[in-house]
Amino acid sequence: MKIAIYPGSFDPVTSGHMDIIQRSSRIFDKLIVAVLENKRKTPSFTVEERMEMIRKASADLPNVEVGTFSGLTVDYARLCNANAIVRGLRAISDFESELAMAAMNKRMAPELDTVILFTSSEWSFISSSVVKEMCSFGGDIHGLVPDCIAEEVQNKLQGCGGIK
Amino acid sequence: MKIAIYPGSFDPVTSGHMDIIQRSSRIFDKLIVAVLENKRKTPSFTVEERMEMIRKASADLPNVEVGTFSGLTVDYARLCNANAIVRGLRAISDFESELAMAAMNKRMAPELDTVILFTSSEWSFISSSVVKEMCSFGGDIHGLVPDCIAEEVQNKLQGCGGIK
Amino acid sequence: MKIAIYPGSFDPVTSGHMDIIQRSSRIFDKLIVAVLENKRKTPSFTVEERMEMIRKASADLPNVEVGTFSGLTVDYARLCNANAIVRGLRAISDFESELAMAAMNKRMAPELDTVILFTSSEWSFISSSVVKEMCSFGGDIHGLVPDCIAEEVQNKLQGCGGIK
Amino acid sequence: MKIAIYPGSFDPVTSGHMDIIQRSSRIFDKLIVAVLENKRKTPSFTVEERMEMIRKASADLPNVEVGTFSGLTVDYARLCNANAIVRGLRAISDFESELAMAAMNKRMAPELDTVILFTSSEWSFISSSVVKEMCSFGGDIHGLVPDCIAEEVQNKLQGCGGIK
Amino acid sequence: MKIAIYPGSFDPVTSGHMDIIQRSSRIFDKLIVAVLENKRKTPSFTVEERMEMIRKASADLPNVEVGTFSGLTVDYARLCNANAIVRGLRAISDFESELAMAAMNKRMAPELDTVILFTSSEWSFISSSVVKEMCSFGGDIHGLVPDCIAEEVQNKLQGCGGIK
Amino acid sequence: MKIAIYPGSFDPVTSGHMDIIQRSSRIFDKLIVAVLENKRKTPSFTVEERMEMIRKASADLPNVEVGTFSGLTVDYARLCNANAIVRGLRAISDFESELAMAAMNKRMAPELDTVILFTSSEWSFISSSVVKEMCSFGGDIHGLVPDCIAEEVQNKLQGCGGIK
Repeated sequence: MKIAIYPGSFDPVTSGHMDIIQRSSRIFDKLIVAVLENKRKTPSFTVEERMEMIRKASADLPNVEVGTFSGLTVDYARLCNANAIVRGLRAISDFESELAMAAMNKRMAPELDTVILFTSSEWSFISSSVVKEMCSFGGDIHGLVPDCIAEEVQNKLQGCGGIK
Repeated sequence: MKIAIYPGSFDPVTSGHMDIIQRSSRIFDKLIVAVLENKRKTPSFTVEERMEMIRKASADLPNVEVGTFSGLTVDYARLCNANAIVRGLRAISDFESELAMAAMNKRMAPELDTVILFTSSEWSFISSSVVKEMCSFGGDIHGLVPDCIAEEVQNKLQGCGGIK
Repeated sequence: MKIAIYPGSFDPVTSGHMDIIQRSSRIFDKLIVAVLENKRKTPSFTVEERMEMIRKASADLPNVEVGTFSGLTVDYARLCNANAIVRGLRAISDFESELAMAAMNKRMAPELDTVILFTSSEWSFISSSVVKEMCSFGGDIHGLVPDCIAEEVQNKLQGCGGIK
Repeated sequence: MKIAIYPGSFDPVTSGHMDIIQRSSRIFDKLIVAVLENKRKTPSFTVEERMEMIRKASADLPNVEVGTFSGLTVDYARLCNANAIVRGLRAISDFESELAMAAMNKRMAPELDTVILFTSSEWSFISSSVVKEMCSFGGDIHGLVPDCIAEEVQNKLQGCGGIK
Repeated sequence: MKIAIYPGSFDPVTSGHMDIIQRSSRIFDKLIVAVLENKRKTPSFTVEERMEMIRKASADLPNVEVGTFSGLTVDYARLCNANAIVRGLRAISDFESELAMAAMNKRMAPELDTVILFTSSEWSFISSSVVKEMCSFGGDIHGLVPDCIAEEVQNKLQGCGGIK
Repeated sequence: MKIAIYPGSFDPVTSGHMDIIQRSSRIFDKLIVAVLENKRKTPSFTVEERMEMIRKASADLPNVEVGTFSGLTVDYARLCNANAIVRGLRAISDFESELAMAAMNKRMAPELDTVILFTSSEWSFISSSVVKEMCSFGGDIHGLVPDCIAEEVQNKLQGCGGIK
């Protein structure tokens, strides 16, 4: 059985992330979406909220699981018996950092490979920070995040627009 | 069963191609290396020679097959019942042409996905044309192509150095 | 009155070119689409055919005219009393050649400026050569060129698929 | 009448910004330089100081006005009845963020277009932050900002060199 | 006598920096490694620690000296009677910032030139921040920094992993 | 004594090449400008003409010599007892091909290093082919090539404008 993990912050999950999740779930037998808990950053959503939103949005994908980790991605991948790490490549500006990350991961875990999917062009301009910025200015995020979480995201983020 | 095709000219197959072939054969259940017959170009090796060199170099990889096609990649992929098209990304300068090719293929065959592997950094400077140029100037191609085909490649290409 | 020229080979005009033509026609009072006659290249369509296809496709844009020129773009722009040269930027790989061309044109004609529009993402993978390659392999070009010229393009290019 | 806005922080306006302002003022009938008030950042100059410096530097350009806004650029552009948003592209590294911004703006306001000018090569290395860094180290900013504001900028920024 | 300076933060010096130091020391008669003291940033190692680590790692290179400076690089280069500033280029993403820095330095000191070496591909993914991140997660930095300082770096940085 | 070679086609030498020649001649004790004789290409100028133009243009640089070679650059560099190969980097689009060339040369001759100079921004848009294209359209090449060879270049290239 081929298992892959798809690591990220997902703060919150976007339509671009969902594009990668759906497509990876067709390529691998099992896909684990791995929410990174980075103790040095202050996310907008808790790890539990982020995991729950991904679970809702991928409810119709039976071979997708949601997990969480802190520390090195390769350690979590090994724990999951994963064969591969999935990453989405949105634009050329992502290229070199993804290449460097893949090279460092290969150095630490040669048996694991990094598999890249190009983000579909309709989602290539969307990132979690774009979603947050749009919300804070009162812009409409319809379509930028999965429909089933749009209201939750808008409610949480609009409230903190004036503060942050 | 997850099947992928890895299309290319492979004129001749290089150590960089072999890196992608080995790694893809671990990710997919079956990998078909698909040699493109482009009737508008004059290759250095015939389709049969190119296929035979790939067979030799991948003899120890039981789930790798070698095929050939002309025309559209997506038509051949469908013929093979493939789920995915594998491509190696060597450098940023490959990015946009690969992205465009993936987008056009998706347009024609939405059920097929393009999966990208970053070429390992030690092979990122190697291409079939670099191999051919090195040969024609009498340079040593040891390491640039699989050992088992190095002599064959050198013999064929050195001979035509002065002519082409 | 602000006049711009939009120079190119348009061999044939694509949906991406039409995107730039429509948008430029709203920014400038008059837009002249300028078909380059490059005597060193063998185009698939004659200058007259290319001009006629652009005329058909822009029939509903009253302030768009179609012209032809050979030689330096700046000379033709001056002949047209143009204030600006319009160029579409599809991808990063176009950036430096467009920047260099703009710099050379400014050197020769400081009063003329080059105005860049980003090609809309749905057309960013389309070029005249992609259209021609698709045709020659029997692929469907619906949507890649304006509907009113699709049949003409397909007829002309499919016929020469085996020859060229 | 064709109206464009040129949004930015202009903290402070540089010779590179002035290059774009002068050239845009020849392409459009009216150009509104729109100073962004970003409440999350601490600028070196107040909005009023920034607007006044632009007014001084563009005093000889009768069709240039100076405004200010917070929030979404497209909302301000609509308020101004603008047809276009002008942006300067200094280098490839600006490309993707500008493309993404243009795509998001088009999504929110399809009737507005983003028009790009390449920053002239003599100004391509200049940004507001380079000017500020030069000042703080006691470097000479002559030529990097318009002559009529150079002294004001140098006075204000040298003073805070040791503090910030 | 041809003298060059190689400026940087070196917080800490990596195997990639050492690659540039060794190679530059063969090209120039004297190389001064110049540790930047940036009062606005909080480095992980003091200037003295950083200088001492470089001295240890370059002990076998007789024409390499280690210095420190704050302020403008060109001022320090002149103080050293240097003919050239050496910089390593790891990746395309470094290109434009290095080009801009070289252009600003040339503007301030036309007699000084910037000389670029490409970082060898085996070190192209290594930076001081990657080393620090690896340490904080308990990863192994063997090979990423010179052997003679690896223990010192690991001890210092692992301790602060949980805090920073 | 530090010796460098500066290899290229120089068909013809441009003001951009001269910028690199002048600057390299200050960094190295001796600079050999090495004109490549590529038997597969048809240059506009013979090797002898190209060498003579470089000699004229660098007459005031006593430590610059002009040579010619065919075959591998590293073989010629060794013949010259060179320590380094000098290359000019005009733009990001040159980066990866230069990096690959440097890596291949290092593989073949580890004792030789490739030293990069950024082409000054005023020359970054100039290449031998731009010069030739300008000439063929009757454009003015004043400033694009050294003054002392401008007439010779213009005479030779204008004549063949209509033919080639």
